[in-house]
Amino acid sequence: MQKPLGLEDLQALDAADPLKDVRDTFQIPGNGVYFNGNSLGPRPKSCVTALNRLLHDEWGAKGGAAWKRDDWMALPFTVGSKIACIIGAAEDEVVVADSTTINLAKMLEAGLSLTQGRYIIVTDVQNFPTDRYILEDFVKRHPRLELRVADEDSMLDAIDENVALIALTHVNYRTSRQHDMAAINRRAREVGALTLWDLSHSAGAIPLDISALGTDLAIGCTYKYLNGGPGAPAYIYVAKRHQRLIEAGLPGWMGHENPFDFSPHFSPAPGMQRHLTGTPPIMALTVLNESLDILLAASVDKVLAKNRSLVDCFIRLVNEQLSAMDIVILGDRDRAKCGAQVSLQTPHAASLVDALEEVGIIADYRPPNIIRFGMTGLYVRYSDLWCAVTAIKRTLS
Amino acid sequence: MQKPLGLEDLQALDAADPLKDVRDTFQIPGNGVYFNGNSLGPRPKSCVTALNRLLHDEWGAKGGAAWKRDDWMALPFTVGSKIACIIGAAEDEVVVADSTTINLAKMLEAGLSLTQGRYIIVTDVQNFPTDRYILEDFVKRHPRLELRVADEDSMLDAIDENVALIALTHVNYRTSRQHDMAAINRRAREVGALTLWDLSHSAGAIPLDISALGTDLAIGCTYKYLNGGPGAPAYIYVAKRHQRLIEAGLPGWMGHENPFDFSPHFSPAPGMQRHLTGTPPIMALTVLNESLDILLAASVDKVLAKNRSLVDCFIRLVNEQLSAMDIVILGDRDRAKCGAQVSLQTPHAASLVDALEEVGIIADYRPPNIIRFGMTGLYVRYSDLWCAVTAIKRTLS
Repeated sequence: MQKPLGLEDLQALDAADPLKDVRDTFQIPGNGVYFNGNSLGPRPKSCVTALNRLLHDEWGAKGGAAWKRDDWMALPFTVGSKIACIIGAAEDEVVVADSTTINLAKMLEAGLSLTQGRYIIVTDVQNFPTDRYILEDFVKRHPRLELRVADEDSMLDAIDENVALIALTHVNYRTSRQHDMAAINRRAREVGALTLWDLSHSAGAIPLDISALGTDLAIGCTYKYLNGGPGAPAYIYVAKRHQRLIEAGLPGWMGHENPFDFSPHFSPAPGMQRHLTGTPPIMALTVLNESLDILLAASVDKVLAKNRSLVDCFIRLVNEQLSAMDIVILGDRDRAKCGAQVSLQTPHAASLVDALEEVGIIADYRPPNIIRFGMTGLYVRYSDLWCAVTAIKRTLS
Repeated sequence: MQKPLGLEDLQALDAADPLKDVRDTFQIPGNGVYFNGNSLGPRPKSCVTALNRLLHDEWGAKGGAAWKRDDWMALPFTVGSKIACIIGAAEDEVVVADSTTINLAKMLEAGLSLTQGRYIIVTDVQNFPTDRYILEDFVKRHPRLELRVADEDSMLDAIDENVALIALTHVNYRTSRQHDMAAINRRAREVGALTLWDLSHSAGAIPLDISALGTDLAIGCTYKYLNGGPGAPAYIYVAKRHQRLIEAGLPGWMGHENPFDFSPHFSPAPGMQRHLTGTPPIMALTVLNESLDILLAASVDKVLAKNRSLVDCFIRLVNEQLSAMDIVILGDRDRAKCGAQVSLQTPHAASLVDALEEVGIIADYRPPNIIRFGMTGLYVRYSDLWCAVTAIKRTLS
């Protein structure tokens, strides 16, 4: 039998951690034990310098001329290309714009332009609420369309020749379970349907290789594992093979091939630009750019490997230290089929998250009975896991 | 005959200007002669302190907990209530969200929920391109709808009993001409149609009293005369009388009556909250909040009166000093029927705007032959008008 994991083992892992210095590039909330990065990632310290340059030297010193003189117009693409590296896309397959919810609405409309004649949109009953709302609204607006809401486990059966789009969130926000992207993409391709993945709980959390897996369309959020800040803009991915034919979901002036010609009719820009709509949010893009640079400099592979290692250690600790407690670990036993957050289900969830916070450990409560722990290798230490598990033990004993 | 306006007269106006100290609260681009505030307003200096508080004490120190502990969730409404003061709405009639283009798309959809059975959307041929694109896309998506594109001057004739919505930009971005909001709202009310005004070139520029004029719906941008910064979020106004029945244009989780209950179906929040979609952009809202506080502290009435006075002086100077030049002042002779920007049409526009910039005067070129001068009383000085007119004279002579 394996010897139980102890504090010293975890401290040894911290000492040997090639990412241990990256933590200092962030301001870690509270007392420094922060498991809420799956909800809102921490602040990259370098954003202050970057913002000051933007505020004083660009917006401040040049005003509107900065749109032409600085890299503002390019930011949605340069920042998008960094996200592309993280999700396994080509650099010209991602652009940053709007919110995840808005982008889902846009890409449903856009996706329809590639799936003429089909009438079913597939989703799953566990999809994130805002995705559900947009999907229900979308079929309400298009009376010829129909929403097929399948169980997570019967997803492949729900995909047939009538399906236009399969719109799913890759990693479930409650349970951390992953859909089998490879199998679903394959099944979609077999029947001629398109996939539209919400990567909000996947990007920066787990290995992704969406181009190789044949993903057609994707969207995602940047304020969780990508540390873009509260309300940071979201992104859109369109596989290169669709970029020429897909229409703009909401054709705004920034998606026009010549925005500053002010022509009376819309003519889509080539590539990802047509998926821009209004004016890009330059401040938020500037901060997100800093966060992504930290992740890329640390090496995406190393960060994702550490995320997984944190998940495995935490689950082992929960099993070893908390087996007597009324706690269930949600998600699949095979953590390769889950995200980087560990969700514990317990009737004491609400009071437990408060008790943890009192001792400086920040986790996240999801009513009615779930605590989520985001395992983010950029700044979570192995010894933080020990703090969390011993604090849970003390509280529930 | 009136004595021509001279530099000394303008300096006397500056000396007596009750707003003269407000200028110091902004970082004025270039050498300080900035007429481009109708495109991108300048940076309020106080935004650095406000942002640092947000970055260090809120996002940085509290992480995701700041959503509950600070005023983040309230920001779209508190900032919205300040915009309400500026456009003549009640404080609970405005919310800040997304971009102007996105909000137009949302409010077209939302507006339809109040106008069952009608099939015409009216706009004018001079509408801002992004508004045109969204309108054309909207009727393409709703095959039962039809877009009626009228001339500016025949707008009232275009509004009949079949009209659902009249979607217009109040002040024309090229010519500075205003639509007659009172007359169009009245005509709409007579036939039972709704008005949806884009106030991007009006708010903070000219007196607005949209509630009293019976405006139904409005949207607008905050980075022009409201100085919110590059890509700052836009706003939505819905008249109180419609707020209970109007549907959400794009139902996202932030518009749900209980966003954090994560319920599977959308149930709209009361009031303006249902018009939120994704997560609010907290950094941009923080900066916009600072800019609006400056405008409100300076007194909106005083600022709008000075805007108008700057327009009148500038036009007088152009007439007095540049009558020999090949220059036409666009817009209506009655400047009460125009916005706060003065557009000069001249075949030399492109080279002229460059020549002005070389001597530190920033105006804005709109191809092929227009220079726009934004008259923004918060920071433009009367003597700046003299600089501009004499520089034009020197360049064209």
